[in-house]
Amino acid sequence: MYIGIDLGGTGIKAGLVTKDCKILHTDHVPTNAGRHYSEIIADMAALAKKVVIDAGHTLDEIESVGIGSPGTADDKNGILVYSCNLKFDNVPMREEFKKHWNIPVYMGNDANCAAWGEYSYLNDPTIDDFIAITLGTGVGGGVIINKQVYSGFNGAAVEIGHFKVRENGVPCTCGRCGCWERYASVTALIRITKEKMEKCPDSLMHIEAGKEGKVTGRTSFMAAKAGDTAAREVVDEYIKNIAEGIVSVINIFQPNKLVIGGAISKEGDKLLNPIKEFVQKYSYVKNSPHTEISIASLGNDAGIIGAAMLGH
Amino acid sequence: MYIGIDLGGTGIKAGLVTKDCKILHTDHVPTNAGRHYSEIIADMAALAKKVVIDAGHTLDEIESVGIGSPGTADDKNGILVYSCNLKFDNVPMREEFKKHWNIPVYMGNDANCAAWGEYSYLNDPTIDDFIAITLGTGVGGGVIINKQVYSGFNGAAVEIGHFKVRENGVPCTCGRCGCWERYASVTALIRITKEKMEKCPDSLMHIEAGKEGKVTGRTSFMAAKAGDTAAREVVDEYIKNIAEGIVSVINIFQPNKLVIGGAISKEGDKLLNPIKEFVQKYSYVKNSPHTEISIASLGNDAGIIGAAMLGH
Repeated sequence: MYIGIDLGGTGIKAGLVTKDCKILHTDHVPTNAGRHYSEIIADMAALAKKVVIDAGHTLDEIESVGIGSPGTADDKNGILVYSCNLKFDNVPMREEFKKHWNIPVYMGNDANCAAWGEYSYLNDPTIDDFIAITLGTGVGGGVIINKQVYSGFNGAAVEIGHFKVRENGVPCTCGRCGCWERYASVTALIRITKEKMEKCPDSLMHIEAGKEGKVTGRTSFMAAKAGDTAAREVVDEYIKNIAEGIVSVINIFQPNKLVIGGAISKEGDKLLNPIKEFVQKYSYVKNSPHTEISIASLGNDAGIIGAAMLGH
Repeated sequence: MYIGIDLGGTGIKAGLVTKDCKILHTDHVPTNAGRHYSEIIADMAALAKKVVIDAGHTLDEIESVGIGSPGTADDKNGILVYSCNLKFDNVPMREEFKKHWNIPVYMGNDANCAAWGEYSYLNDPTIDDFIAITLGTGVGGGVIINKQVYSGFNGAAVEIGHFKVRENGVPCTCGRCGCWERYASVTALIRITKEKMEKCPDSLMHIEAGKEGKVTGRTSFMAAKAGDTAAREVVDEYIKNIAEGIVSVINIFQPNKLVIGGAISKEGDKLLNPIKEFVQKYSYVKNSPHTEISIASLGNDAGIIGAAMLGH
């Protein structure tokens, strides 16, 4: 059994995970980001141990701990090189964790961990090259090449949301304008929804937003389902934004399989089918086998499971 | 010693290459594309043997033959899956070649071969991840990951010119609009140059184009060097187009090194320095080591050398 830790800017989640990617028990504590790393890592270790004990197991049953965190993780040297969200700069994460629990510790970027979780869960030895894309506040992603997480020479790949898709586009958090993330994230969907709602005061989107108290990623999908034309246009534009980017990603990587995760992936076939159709039509490859596209399997658990499976 | 063959839509080039990536002798014959593959492959084998003999060597000194060709090569099965330029469809290239010369035969996509040639020539064991981009009629590229050519699950990666950078952009040969290739290739530079020349009848670009008898990739660079403002604007726009794409490519791959090849790379530092400056400024990575960017070393020989080094 392994422990997977998902260290976020807001919360620390830990899970006890079996060799076949099943979560037996999870728990969480607040990160209280801004504290010294030694305090945060002490909380991580305490939480990890608590998860084992609360599940009725003993620490010596655990083979390793994996830690997924935002930013750039250098697993080779056990250093969290940089994390903006956590205000961490060259933190000796492995060494510090081992002060509390002397066990093999693996580290990875959170998006890479989520991809590794999805890949490990598939447990399909015919798949060498695999991509998981997460549509959330931003667009994250992880790439598995030759059955291994690919993170570039400096550990900072794969910022898959940050290729530019528009000239003079929407300003991005990364300092450029027009990154894919600005058009394919849930944040982008909400922006597009609000813009259309302003232009269309009679749209059912106003009713749907009213029900939830605010405009969310569901607003346009719900109103489109109820037959609203303006909402349909929002959904179509958003799906095209996603699909355009996925064609570009596939033209570059040609993975066996690409999965789409994040809250919006709950829309299922309503999201997936038009994307598949678009990719089939516009992909560079015409005469070779095509990448299989599907919805991610693990939801929010992908990060914990992937962290747990690091090194395995 | 190895033989590298660069099979193009117009010509077949073959070279005798040493283990340390030096070309001893080359020769070429026309492809006459449209012929049956057996005729073209017979010509390739005859040319390969001729190159060995003409250089004063014997066939038994040759360890292997590598063939680089446009389209999708399946080296595992020895099949050229598809090549639009050659009108080839599932051609049993290895088997057919061996009828003429029974020697180990390796196959690869031409852009991947060029990247492999540049990478092999560097002979730097500290470089795991490497990208070569060729700016020519289109934008080609090859990616080395973990010291191996990356070509995806179907052999059709890496179409690095075919990620979309503009909404409603210039139509691309791949069926989409606004691909990077439409803005960063020499074809794109010529288009931008012509557009500016129409708007600026007094520009020195008209003189420069007159000297060469037509507008080329050099027209704007020459006129800019002579102080022409309109030409300067063309060069600046073109370089920005290249640099924007390179930032995107680096955000995704984070390779140790990226080299820029193709005819336009002869502009050297005039091309390279502004690209480096732009990438430094807009790259996603701020606190990690940056990809080294330079001009490719091998020019037109990269394809032959890379093909020769396939399997080594």
